[in-house]
Amino acid sequence: MERAMYFLDQKDMPTHWYNVLPDLPEPLPPLRHPGTKEPLPREGPLPPPIFTDAVNKQEFSTERYIEIPEEVQEAYRTYRPTVLHRAYRLEKALDTPAKIFYKYEGTSQAGSHKPNTALAQAYYAKKEGVKRLITETGAGQWGSALAMACAFFSLECKVFMVRVSYHQKPGRRILMETWGSKIVPSPSSDTEVGRRLLAENPEHPGSLGIAISEAIQAAFGDDEAKYSIGSVVNHVLLHQTIIGEETRKQMEMADAYPDIIVGCVGGGSNFAGQFLPWIRDKLSGKKPDLRIICVEPKACPTLTKGPYTWDFGDEAGLAPIVLMYTLGHTFVPPGVHAGGLRYHGMSPIICHLYKLGLIEAQAVHQVATFEAGVKFARTEGIITAPEPCHDLRVAIDEALKCKESGEAKTILIAHSGHGHFDLAAYDEYLSGKLVDYEYPEEKVKEALAHLPQVPEG
Amino acid sequence: MERAMYFLDQKDMPTHWYNVLPDLPEPLPPLRHPGTKEPLPREGPLPPPIFTDAVNKQEFSTERYIEIPEEVQEAYRTYRPTVLHRAYRLEKALDTPAKIFYKYEGTSQAGSHKPNTALAQAYYAKKEGVKRLITETGAGQWGSALAMACAFFSLECKVFMVRVSYHQKPGRRILMETWGSKIVPSPSSDTEVGRRLLAENPEHPGSLGIAISEAIQAAFGDDEAKYSIGSVVNHVLLHQTIIGEETRKQMEMADAYPDIIVGCVGGGSNFAGQFLPWIRDKLSGKKPDLRIICVEPKACPTLTKGPYTWDFGDEAGLAPIVLMYTLGHTFVPPGVHAGGLRYHGMSPIICHLYKLGLIEAQAVHQVATFEAGVKFARTEGIITAPEPCHDLRVAIDEALKCKESGEAKTILIAHSGHGHFDLAAYDEYLSGKLVDYEYPEEKVKEALAHLPQVPEG
Repeated sequence: MERAMYFLDQKDMPTHWYNVLPDLPEPLPPLRHPGTKEPLPREGPLPPPIFTDAVNKQEFSTERYIEIPEEVQEAYRTYRPTVLHRAYRLEKALDTPAKIFYKYEGTSQAGSHKPNTALAQAYYAKKEGVKRLITETGAGQWGSALAMACAFFSLECKVFMVRVSYHQKPGRRILMETWGSKIVPSPSSDTEVGRRLLAENPEHPGSLGIAISEAIQAAFGDDEAKYSIGSVVNHVLLHQTIIGEETRKQMEMADAYPDIIVGCVGGGSNFAGQFLPWIRDKLSGKKPDLRIICVEPKACPTLTKGPYTWDFGDEAGLAPIVLMYTLGHTFVPPGVHAGGLRYHGMSPIICHLYKLGLIEAQAVHQVATFEAGVKFARTEGIITAPEPCHDLRVAIDEALKCKESGEAKTILIAHSGHGHFDLAAYDEYLSGKLVDYEYPEEKVKEALAHLPQVPEG
Repeated sequence: MERAMYFLDQKDMPTHWYNVLPDLPEPLPPLRHPGTKEPLPREGPLPPPIFTDAVNKQEFSTERYIEIPEEVQEAYRTYRPTVLHRAYRLEKALDTPAKIFYKYEGTSQAGSHKPNTALAQAYYAKKEGVKRLITETGAGQWGSALAMACAFFSLECKVFMVRVSYHQKPGRRILMETWGSKIVPSPSSDTEVGRRLLAENPEHPGSLGIAISEAIQAAFGDDEAKYSIGSVVNHVLLHQTIIGEETRKQMEMADAYPDIIVGCVGGGSNFAGQFLPWIRDKLSGKKPDLRIICVEPKACPTLTKGPYTWDFGDEAGLAPIVLMYTLGHTFVPPGVHAGGLRYHGMSPIICHLYKLGLIEAQAVHQVATFEAGVKFARTEGIITAPEPCHDLRVAIDEALKCKESGEAKTILIAHSGHGHFDLAAYDEYLSGKLVDYEYPEEKVKEALAHLPQVPEG
């Protein structure tokens, strides 16, 4: 073999993001206002008014291709195009006739796909005269991407980081500080909601929901700031389509076309960023049998177990109400290592496509995902983050099915990043201490009893 | 600008390592036997007999180009060619007319250049019927590269890891275990020297010198094993020349040629891997004014402060005696974060070239290196390991000199890897707690009093 890595020359880097909205066979259901519960205008803007004008427009845009500003392209050129790999060594170890490719976002400076949208959001903020961006982060993957983006565009950045992670995972905090951001353990005394929770319990461990509420409140009360979000919403998925657009060109270089595309979904932005540019071919009839498999943890099986219903996008009920698959916005999933997949809901675009039967979903247990991650490490070398270990599990399963059937299918993995800050999870797996969590049916039932009541409309 | 990253297609990846030995204007001085102190044969082998035949031959080879075995090329293709970047954003921040390029080895799965030789050594061991490789590691960068290489070639791997690092830096240990290696805290009860030290002090913190002694002893006493080394010796530098050979092609793509090449030196393998393919042009008169700057810590200034004399390559006196710049094999450098630069000696090839006046050396303080690292992080995004932060310091200084003089020099940085496992050092720098260490003149004097006495010959 001549090539196991497909490099795309920067002069051929895609210059446009792909917006799936105008190509959907049915339009996305309108959002609902979190307070009034009434339908919001189809053309936006998102409430509350804490987003930049540019992303608010993109959120509801009907343009099929949206040009990537030259300044954002320049920033992308510090790490993009990322590489498409052919996993020859994994194929050989599995003794499968399947061809396995993986598009790897782990070589971005922040270690994941997150900078693809962070850089765009920071650029627009700078252009609109914003002084600082405010966001929340759990383990720190999103926060670190935004921190880097703000350094690139000379913006201040304030990150509310879940207090327990702030103390337990200093690595990600230091990363963000190295890029110049201000990190605040949440709950904090900087916001009303934070002060209230600290008064109740000065040692409050925090949660992602609380951190979101603090970030939104802080942005709302700061004229020089805007809020920035790292997944779920349309404009984030839009920015991530650079991944799939690049991959299309690279698969062409490899003279290959995927039969199966597999990726993990938490909010869904990495995987949608990969598959949306391909689903065009399914919608247009060019590749009607293309399989797109969303993988989620059995501990948080939004698509595979949740009802399709109206729910808040955030735990605090400050974000719009969305028609989606959800386990209830008050549901707290078991502590699987794949923190990025512990979201009660799912991107509205992914929910819509799943409802329409255009994409599939599977739920897997975490021990099996780390087993796949270790196999990948020992064949391809890369230490995979817990989230994309989910992709690896299903990709390996599909490759093994090919071994049985003798079919030489082409499998494309949307590999979102490295696990350099997740080694404790590998340690647990290797020492036999890692456990699986069964689907917490009772807790979901309870959370689903607290869905917002939405009037007909 | 069209390109800030230069990708080299895998079909154009160099197929040969470059061996500088036949091109040296004067031959390397012969080694001396660590026991008898007598000169060793110029054609080898290295004592003791713990290396594979293949690398023992390469160590003394007079062939100018040595073919990279196809199996090693295949393994390289999981991460090579690495990218040559143009640091446009850093240039702009410095407001310099200099053109700054960096060849970045941090995208290898182990995060540094080390797999370039680890994969070669593991391949040769497998081919010669060896069952396991044994080595030592300090903080774990070399150990993790060899662990991955052994996974790739289905070899067992045993790593003696300095006990204090084993406990303080679990990340690197887990990395190695994920790749399937056995990690033993050193001193250990597995070797005679280890047992003796543990009997004296059951809580012995260990040192790299002790770990080397244990690894050599363990390999010596195990018929199925060979020993593997990660820097300093000729064959390791040879394997690293893939870096410079790639860079030559990539600089050509960029239509550029370096005026200055800068890199940090501990044992010297990464930097030699970059500059040896360029020094050809200096030796041949094609680029006589090419500047090659070795950067070392002020705390361990081997080239800039050490005498050129005979000394053991290792602290325990088991390795051959070499004519080199040295601070004395018993010298224990202050605890700078750049652990990879805390070596008392230096690769014989680098010492020889430095003695001949073909390369330069500078020593820098660590606070200044982290200042450069943070500037680099906030412009180019990458979090740099403490060792290559030394390159960044000197590259930035040279670029600022260009700003003063108005010269548009081309500076090439040999960037050896990321700092994802070194964030505590950044934390110290950012919080103002990082200190500089003055050159420990008295300790060096004491160590230099213990040099081996070598007979004329």
